[in-house]
Amino acid sequence: MKARKILLSESEIPDKWYNIMADLPNKPLPPLDPGTGEPIGPEALAPLFPMALIEQEVSTERWIDIPDEVRNIYTMWRPTPLYRAYGLEKALDTPAKIYYKYEGVSPSGSHKPNTAVPQAYYNMKEGVKKITTETGAGQWGSALSFACQHFGLECEVYMVRLSYDDKPYRKIMMNTWGADVYPSPSNRTEAGRKILAEHPDSPGSLGIAISEAVEAAVSSETTKYALGSVLNHVKLHQTIIGQEAILQMEKAGDMPDIVIAPFGGGSNFAGLSFPFLRLNLEGKTNIRCIASEPASCPKLTRGVFRYDFGDTIGMTPLFPMYTLGHTFVPAPIHAGGLRYHGAGIIVSQLLRDDLIEAVSHNNPEVFEAGIIFARSEGIIPAPEAAHGIATVIAEAKKCKEEGVSKTILFNLCGHGNFDMKAYQDYFEGKIEDHELTDAEIKASLAELSTPEIP
Amino acid sequence: MKARKILLSESEIPDKWYNIMADLPNKPLPPLDPGTGEPIGPEALAPLFPMALIEQEVSTERWIDIPDEVRNIYTMWRPTPLYRAYGLEKALDTPAKIYYKYEGVSPSGSHKPNTAVPQAYYNMKEGVKKITTETGAGQWGSALSFACQHFGLECEVYMVRLSYDDKPYRKIMMNTWGADVYPSPSNRTEAGRKILAEHPDSPGSLGIAISEAVEAAVSSETTKYALGSVLNHVKLHQTIIGQEAILQMEKAGDMPDIVIAPFGGGSNFAGLSFPFLRLNLEGKTNIRCIASEPASCPKLTRGVFRYDFGDTIGMTPLFPMYTLGHTFVPAPIHAGGLRYHGAGIIVSQLLRDDLIEAVSHNNPEVFEAGIIFARSEGIIPAPEAAHGIATVIAEAKKCKEEGVSKTILFNLCGHGNFDMKAYQDYFEGKIEDHELTDAEIKASLAELSTPEIP
Repeated sequence: MKARKILLSESEIPDKWYNIMADLPNKPLPPLDPGTGEPIGPEALAPLFPMALIEQEVSTERWIDIPDEVRNIYTMWRPTPLYRAYGLEKALDTPAKIYYKYEGVSPSGSHKPNTAVPQAYYNMKEGVKKITTETGAGQWGSALSFACQHFGLECEVYMVRLSYDDKPYRKIMMNTWGADVYPSPSNRTEAGRKILAEHPDSPGSLGIAISEAVEAAVSSETTKYALGSVLNHVKLHQTIIGQEAILQMEKAGDMPDIVIAPFGGGSNFAGLSFPFLRLNLEGKTNIRCIASEPASCPKLTRGVFRYDFGDTIGMTPLFPMYTLGHTFVPAPIHAGGLRYHGAGIIVSQLLRDDLIEAVSHNNPEVFEAGIIFARSEGIIPAPEAAHGIATVIAEAKKCKEEGVSKTILFNLCGHGNFDMKAYQDYFEGKIEDHELTDAEIKASLAELSTPEIP
Repeated sequence: MKARKILLSESEIPDKWYNIMADLPNKPLPPLDPGTGEPIGPEALAPLFPMALIEQEVSTERWIDIPDEVRNIYTMWRPTPLYRAYGLEKALDTPAKIYYKYEGVSPSGSHKPNTAVPQAYYNMKEGVKKITTETGAGQWGSALSFACQHFGLECEVYMVRLSYDDKPYRKIMMNTWGADVYPSPSNRTEAGRKILAEHPDSPGSLGIAISEAVEAAVSSETTKYALGSVLNHVKLHQTIIGQEAILQMEKAGDMPDIVIAPFGGGSNFAGLSFPFLRLNLEGKTNIRCIASEPASCPKLTRGVFRYDFGDTIGMTPLFPMYTLGHTFVPAPIHAGGLRYHGAGIIVSQLLRDDLIEAVSHNNPEVFEAGIIFARSEGIIPAPEAAHGIATVIAEAKKCKEEGVSKTILFNLCGHGNFDMKAYQDYFEGKIEDHELTDAEIKASLAELSTPEIP
């Protein structure tokens, strides 16, 4: 019997996160103060984040210790299994060898607790009482609810209205872990009221929800804010995924030619790929790392690289990133976690330097991929994860056409147990292609008034 | 850092199921033909089940080989982890050591695929094209959908209407694996039409859904029926749980004083406890094995031991079991998997012989236990599983009162990702106590006209 899962013991959970900033050939440009246009210092982030996280945000140390308290909570689901996808390989009749790292075994069902736990921990250590955040599909919000509950913190979640209505049970999950959840845009913040005044039926977006959560955080001294992706420290925490995966690939006596992950703000992609990119940057490997984004929100494949806000209202510093413009409201696709206008700073720099690749998939293709996977591997993937699977299938088919056996590794970042309405819509023929026209992208970018990058 | 999970490798998946029939001091009475009152032979079951399963049903061999094809699919989620519940121990401030076997890591999220996979396999081997079944909360129906899909069989599921309405996403899950799902009672069968004529608003029950699935199976030569609990072969397949748990407890250097599992038809309880009962029967241990049932459906604690039908209409043979009467319709509690009027044959005999114990819990107590667990261990338990947790908490509190440290092992048979409406009802104060009065039980049993057992 061929082994299907490659497992690690708890003692093999890495004790350090990998900080790719130490190894980047070109460091990213600094964030700017939108008022002065000058680079901001770490202190500008102090109203939002505890100092320990700000230090990680700007650190260029290669390895950063994982506190024992965090590793102890990681053992609730980590190390996560690495699967050889025998079923999918057979279904595709491909010579490719396909592996996936399965992050859906966490209590909230995705990779998000990898950063929610350390974020809650550092906030607790610095005396914070409450954390506010945004959530799209609910993966991040539920992860933070779980983490806050463990460290005795209150948690207030602004959930994109589209997902709030589509995925009511995500809200109950957050309640079960003690969090308060509000649909965004809400009447609780000025940002929310402003959007509602202009668009009373707004389905919301991650950008809007971030504006609300940030506003709610800065209004109290003992409240801070937490972000589930985009920022450097978030990506840092997720590198536990790729580090484990390297150990597991070594145990399997294999090494990927291609590494694939879905792309929203970048934490999922960074988590799996950065440790492999380290091997590339050290000249040891030449692994293709591919980010999979929705055709309805194609910042990497069709956006511009320039300074932009992280939120819709414009409350954050300006970040150098691939963006569709901070006022862009993505189509209401079910992959709520990918409905974000911009890409994280480091990933943007990597793409600009041609160190990674990006592809996009339209919505029906994504769900077809999800169904193929569910029927061949058993696990029903979250719609976000199904984007990565669509890329895997495309690459595996290429292997078949070319008659070559490549090794493909992807991040199955979460299960779809809370996304069944999406599959219901698919079975009822309601999944539409929301690919953007050139004119739509041009119109969105025309609204950008932030500094261009030469 | 103390290890939280005790893991096994895939090569440690047992290659035999344990058949407790070989070791029972008193063999159960035979099933009877309801028409003649005479014991039935295996051939009476042939319209419903493939011969391989009928042989297992009546076998008295101690060990039965697990086919390689089945073990290969087991590796998709097995071996399942055994957790030391440090979080729960701390929350309860108990000297007890608490462990749980977590079966929720399977694709469908419960222990049910352990038997769904071999049942689909043996049907496929004997040329069956389609399997019908019933499902309560949807755990069994989704497990069988998953299993049938892997062996290329059609699957037709009759889902108790109460659960069909409460858990719509379970239906979509079954559809995702290619099954057809109908609410029961339905208009598709005579049994369903009969119930609907009398009770147009019937919430359904497992007994009714079994009648429908059995009727649908016998109406076609290439269609068979599958049951998710109660019968001997189902319990047999589930013993993989307890066998793995013994290996894992040995690795932990520990052995339980008390083994606890929720009780619906008995497969969950049997799966964990039978391998430990073998140790008891061999005189090696003296482990208390406790079945946890709902106070609204207390066949073990308040039912009678006599011959009764397995279904509501009376289509099955008569089985010797603890029962509340086959026409009993349990209150609409959220633990749909426990809403069954009777107990499996072997478990009934074990209880009659005082080799196991049973307790019941009322509904609010069960959800309080579920919340305590979700907040201390992260995993949100299915309402069925929360019944077992309620017993664990009661025993752990007893340890604290008595100042003794006992080792408790329980079966966390499934996660609650598809049961969030139940938790919503709990938060909204809608979880009611449905404990039966003596008069209600007397009235239900008065309708029984099946043979008494001396």
